[in-house]
Amino acid sequence: MSVDIRLLTPIITRDLRTLDDIRPLERVDLTISHSLLDAGPSSIECELDEALAVPDSIIKAIEAERSGAQAVIIDCMGDPGLHALREVLTIPVLGAGQTALHVANMLGHRFSFVTVIERLRPMIDRMIGAYGLSSKYASFQAIDVPVLELHDNIAALNKALADKSRRAIEQDGADAIVLGCTGFLGCAEAVRASLLESGYDLPVIDPIPIAVHIAEALIKAELRHSKVGYPPPAIKPVAGFHIPGYTEQEATPPSGLE
Amino acid sequence: MSVDIRLLTPIITRDLRTLDDIRPLERVDLTISHSLLDAGPSSIECELDEALAVPDSIIKAIEAERSGAQAVIIDCMGDPGLHALREVLTIPVLGAGQTALHVANMLGHRFSFVTVIERLRPMIDRMIGAYGLSSKYASFQAIDVPVLELHDNIAALNKALADKSRRAIEQDGADAIVLGCTGFLGCAEAVRASLLESGYDLPVIDPIPIAVHIAEALIKAELRHSKVGYPPPAIKPVAGFHIPGYTEQEATPPSGLE
Amino acid sequence: MSVDIRLLTPIITRDLRTLDDIRPLERVDLTISHSLLDAGPSSIECELDEALAVPDSIIKAIEAERSGAQAVIIDCMGDPGLHALREVLTIPVLGAGQTALHVANMLGHRFSFVTVIERLRPMIDRMIGAYGLSSKYASFQAIDVPVLELHDNIAALNKALADKSRRAIEQDGADAIVLGCTGFLGCAEAVRASLLESGYDLPVIDPIPIAVHIAEALIKAELRHSKVGYPPPAIKPVAGFHIPGYTEQEATPPSGLE
Amino acid sequence: MSVDIRLLTPIITRDLRTLDDIRPLERVDLTISHSLLDAGPSSIECELDEALAVPDSIIKAIEAERSGAQAVIIDCMGDPGLHALREVLTIPVLGAGQTALHVANMLGHRFSFVTVIERLRPMIDRMIGAYGLSSKYASFQAIDVPVLELHDNIAALNKALADKSRRAIEQDGADAIVLGCTGFLGCAEAVRASLLESGYDLPVIDPIPIAVHIAEALIKAELRHSKVGYPPPAIKPVAGFHIPGYTEQEATPPSGLE
Amino acid sequence: MSVDIRLLTPIITRDLRTLDDIRPLERVDLTISHSLLDAGPSSIECELDEALAVPDSIIKAIEAERSGAQAVIIDCMGDPGLHALREVLTIPVLGAGQTALHVANMLGHRFSFVTVIERLRPMIDRMIGAYGLSSKYASFQAIDVPVLELHDNIAALNKALADKSRRAIEQDGADAIVLGCTGFLGCAEAVRASLLESGYDLPVIDPIPIAVHIAEALIKAELRHSKVGYPPPAIKPVAGFHIPGYTEQEATPPSGLE
Amino acid sequence: MSVDIRLLTPIITRDLRTLDDIRPLERVDLTISHSLLDAGPSSIECELDEALAVPDSIIKAIEAERSGAQAVIIDCMGDPGLHALREVLTIPVLGAGQTALHVANMLGHRFSFVTVIERLRPMIDRMIGAYGLSSKYASFQAIDVPVLELHDNIAALNKALADKSRRAIEQDGADAIVLGCTGFLGCAEAVRASLLESGYDLPVIDPIPIAVHIAEALIKAELRHSKVGYPPPAIKPVAGFHIPGYTEQEATPPSGLE
Repeated sequence: MSVDIRLLTPIITRDLRTLDDIRPLERVDLTISHSLLDAGPSSIECELDEALAVPDSIIKAIEAERSGAQAVIIDCMGDPGLHALREVLTIPVLGAGQTALHVANMLGHRFSFVTVIERLRPMIDRMIGAYGLSSKYASFQAIDVPVLELHDNIAALNKALADKSRRAIEQDGADAIVLGCTGFLGCAEAVRASLLESGYDLPVIDPIPIAVHIAEALIKAELRHSKVGYPPPAIKPVAGFHIPGYTEQEATPPSGLE
Repeated sequence: MSVDIRLLTPIITRDLRTLDDIRPLERVDLTISHSLLDAGPSSIECELDEALAVPDSIIKAIEAERSGAQAVIIDCMGDPGLHALREVLTIPVLGAGQTALHVANMLGHRFSFVTVIERLRPMIDRMIGAYGLSSKYASFQAIDVPVLELHDNIAALNKALADKSRRAIEQDGADAIVLGCTGFLGCAEAVRASLLESGYDLPVIDPIPIAVHIAEALIKAELRHSKVGYPPPAIKPVAGFHIPGYTEQEATPPSGLE
Repeated sequence: MSVDIRLLTPIITRDLRTLDDIRPLERVDLTISHSLLDAGPSSIECELDEALAVPDSIIKAIEAERSGAQAVIIDCMGDPGLHALREVLTIPVLGAGQTALHVANMLGHRFSFVTVIERLRPMIDRMIGAYGLSSKYASFQAIDVPVLELHDNIAALNKALADKSRRAIEQDGADAIVLGCTGFLGCAEAVRASLLESGYDLPVIDPIPIAVHIAEALIKAELRHSKVGYPPPAIKPVAGFHIPGYTEQEATPPSGLE
Repeated sequence: MSVDIRLLTPIITRDLRTLDDIRPLERVDLTISHSLLDAGPSSIECELDEALAVPDSIIKAIEAERSGAQAVIIDCMGDPGLHALREVLTIPVLGAGQTALHVANMLGHRFSFVTVIERLRPMIDRMIGAYGLSSKYASFQAIDVPVLELHDNIAALNKALADKSRRAIEQDGADAIVLGCTGFLGCAEAVRASLLESGYDLPVIDPIPIAVHIAEALIKAELRHSKVGYPPPAIKPVAGFHIPGYTEQEATPPSGLE
Repeated sequence: MSVDIRLLTPIITRDLRTLDDIRPLERVDLTISHSLLDAGPSSIECELDEALAVPDSIIKAIEAERSGAQAVIIDCMGDPGLHALREVLTIPVLGAGQTALHVANMLGHRFSFVTVIERLRPMIDRMIGAYGLSSKYASFQAIDVPVLELHDNIAALNKALADKSRRAIEQDGADAIVLGCTGFLGCAEAVRASLLESGYDLPVIDPIPIAVHIAEALIKAELRHSKVGYPPPAIKPVAGFHIPGYTEQEATPPSGLE
Repeated sequence: MSVDIRLLTPIITRDLRTLDDIRPLERVDLTISHSLLDAGPSSIECELDEALAVPDSIIKAIEAERSGAQAVIIDCMGDPGLHALREVLTIPVLGAGQTALHVANMLGHRFSFVTVIERLRPMIDRMIGAYGLSSKYASFQAIDVPVLELHDNIAALNKALADKSRRAIEQDGADAIVLGCTGFLGCAEAVRASLLESGYDLPVIDPIPIAVHIAEALIKAELRHSKVGYPPPAIKPVAGFHIPGYTEQEATPPSGLE
């Protein structure tokens, strides 16, 4: 059985995430395809960015299912649009955030979420609460680097992540680390090595690789999200957006949506 | 001091909510203005509808603030876009859902949420959890009437709401009722009268009137949402949407966003 | 519609709270009247003080309703007697604590309670737990000044409140501040200004003004506490107290109640 | 070591609880003395009753400690005044409710509270929440008999308690029963026998005997409540009440406190 | 990369679980080996059974790691010994229960646990609480068939499971079903088909297949449980058991351990 | 009535706990007997140790009941085997941990658990969660001394315990201390004296004396654990262990169980 997984990066920036990042995860029986948005933000760092990312994510996810993808992974730790995508898709939809958090909860006693900027704290707290995992949430730690500057200095990035992870362990009682931005792809190895040098042997979760493997696991087990919990939307008139299969068009001209 | 409050109904349907509904709430020192969406769904009954409602809601809310409104009320019990609107606005933004739920929590011991259709249950459960009010949430009850058919038979609607409220009281231990759709505007009186006939004297919360009065209260007390918790977004390139003051434009043409 | 709200200060001290404090909140359509206790403590700083404040508070609240007040506000952040007053009154009864905490929960992500003395911590923790708001409670901070000395040095008081609020923000992750003593009336402006200077733009909630405005909101919306959750007490023999309308007298002479 | 425990029944009714009820618990090394109130309600069935019971309970508890009692048990399942009494006493103060609930939590998986009247539900829910035991609280069940009529028909009382306990087991998943009124003293044996006949072998907790024995246990282990959590009140002027050791008198004449 | 996973069935009964059950899960790059216990119970249906299963499970798990297994799956929904095994193993140890519960929590809104016998309820409730998933736990349902009789009538078993699942959906609000006994292997397809006939399209989780696939996912992602949270035991004298690598022997002869 | 309580120390080490430790608790009407294990670990400091302690603890507990003991106390703060022992015994079974934690929860506002080594943290957190007491759990503090070295320097031990307790009070907000190892027997007095010198008057709970007294209380009140929640195990074939009354023997020779 060959598996085809679509990674959906819910931003418009072309160079931040490419197939080159993901190719090492491919195998003879695993193909990973990739979508970016045509409409949406250049990075996701706040609620506004998330809101602008969701409509085209829905369209891109429907296209992925129609073109044969067997699962869709939302390539952002805030899981923008996870619930809406699950309503319109019949293949499994995974959030990078939801998946990493559940894996962390299985592998350790208390997890910390180490991410880019402090301002994400309320969003992440709300998300973890909505997933029912607050009782194992040790702390939120931010390195204070904006998403679009992450790759300017990889060594400094790795060091900052290791330092904040160490603080999470020593001060907050964490024994599992969730790397809280999918832009940290590839950093886990260096962070884990640095923590091992300090005597801390614990999982440092790189969200995209584990999400790909969990997506495979769901496909093999023929499991997907509940359609009782995520029933398909009623077809209804909509203006300004065309969601294939779900929206009838209104004549009303859109404003501010170009 | 005269107060100017904007009610933002996050749908495109013209006849479901009009200024006539709201005019009785106006007073010599209180003006209520109204916005509908140009782009978005015709009603809000699922996560997809919410996702499509948010981008133009943000634009309409910014326009409201720029035209002098002193508070914005989101006229939908799912509070679509509440967090994003608070990031971009400096005037108070109230969700009809959040406000009614907090008032219910203040006035009684355990509240029930009585709404239109069963499929909203997971969305409402998640929302109440995110607001930190789950421990006082007695139950969710649905009358199974779609939003766009609500006004076909007002007497039947009032009876269905009273029946489900009675079940919430007798079976689920509720002592406060939140009418869980802003389309129920005006039903509270009949529902409360019916419950009183059964010997139940309890608050039946009609979300829009109390939201208007709480908005006034916040304006008078010079309080608004936290800018520490809802900091303004960074200005960044965005394609397909123009959010005044926050987005720089990308050349990329949108797809599926008309 | 003119509104008449009774502020009930549940202590016997005459000079700590006067109508002069409250008059700025009055408007042409809003009258605020005031009651102090004849029997009770001189300030409220512990469970014993609360216990001694409640019986006469009940009597004063009944008198307020009988003399035409449309709402009663308990002027103490521990909300002494809130539940008992709601049993005997049909007009809305608001606790300064409950109201401020709910407003904080609506306006921010996590709130801190900044109050007079450390020993209140268990009482406040219990109260917040009973209101179902513990999951958003960032911290308790005390300035360590007894209630009766609060007004000796207003500048020092404002500075102490701002310092503890800053600690709540920086150390405990708060993004909303509840001023945790109604004796802090009028301090919010200076505290908020000081926090703004540090770059923190967040709500600093002065409990009495917002309670007055929320009381107005409830009156306008014709809402009050649940009589299912707060049914009227049975009339029964009582010794040593006369609660108008609820108690039949016993001949037994009281001891220690003078 | 002989132990002297004071049972404090916080009502004025003389015949509801007498030393005859308690004498079977006495042993050669255990003396139980008894106090009723001079000022307070004739029974405790609501928040108002509790509020009126607390001031004289404080006085009676102080008298008990001064006369040599080594522990005080509050003889009411709502634990009126528990926190205030602990502030003014240095000997252990036990609430019949708190003690029985903790014992139930130790002996089973989930407990139910079977009591007199439905209207106590919010009070009991709040109390269990405040004690931090909500996660093991299976249900509240009421037999709908007022406290002062409990002893009119003991056989019917036992049957009603057994029936409600059976419902708690079969419908709510309880495996431990707290008899939720100290007026049920002596009923546990018959209730347990009836449940055994139905095949249910589980603890039926009669609150007063176990409270007496737990009080003994605390005395023997030289443990009492925390004075960090319950520090002694400051001495301050009070009108209308005289709490020995804690209140300075005001000249103000009391109103409504006779 | 070929993956070698050990399924550890923590009972001594030879015919209840065989490699034939598991072989369909094998692939060219996935080998599943199997261990039963030499010492322990014939089935696991209570705390006593679990306690007797753990010591030899530890030994068998160590043997599995030493013989080259890359992950161990505990083939019992109560996850006996999960924490102890993780202390002594460096390869990932998965509990069938923990894994299925987390997958259910990711795929739906609220899950129910449908298992063999009612008496497991407290054990399962405690387990779900310990994993931090109680807030999404809709209900426990039991078909009342002992483990060793499960395979007497497969059609009846499938029907009983579907009936209890339907009750979980309709009465308890579940939208995901965890088959709560690994002896139900292979039943998911028929249960899901029956639920689909009733109009319910939701995940029915067969724990062993998904555990195998999640184990593969962890191996591929090079993740395992935290050694900060599960540090290796100190080597110390032990009597009656020999845990390779961890126990020094005592001369003391065992009693009751044959 | 004379009471006979069995202390079951679930380790094989002969000199760590002796009857001499316990004799001061005996009285004319209270006999305490003692069991050690023949098979099991030399101390309990991890999940592995607990797992090895339980099988013989079950046997020793059954022997205690058969020889006339009226209650069994598990002499270890992790309560190894508590649930299994309760299934097979009809006399009350108390865990030293469960009992001390409930007493702490009754006597204060928030408790801390002060114990031997940091690695116990996840085990203790899980235990407190399973008992439903997490909401009052202020902190875990460890002195970092292994169990078998505890008695090398009693003065240093007392000082370390007092220092960590002070930190729990000052930094974590604790107002009750649970001494988190039964090997700390006798230290409470010195710890409490040291805390009093710092001005902290709070309960320092020595688990074994209070467990003995609570066991007495349960015996006098004729209460024991629920047999609905802890039903007796079915009798079934078992290999390698003989649990009197519950196991039929298998011929299978044990491996690794000597």
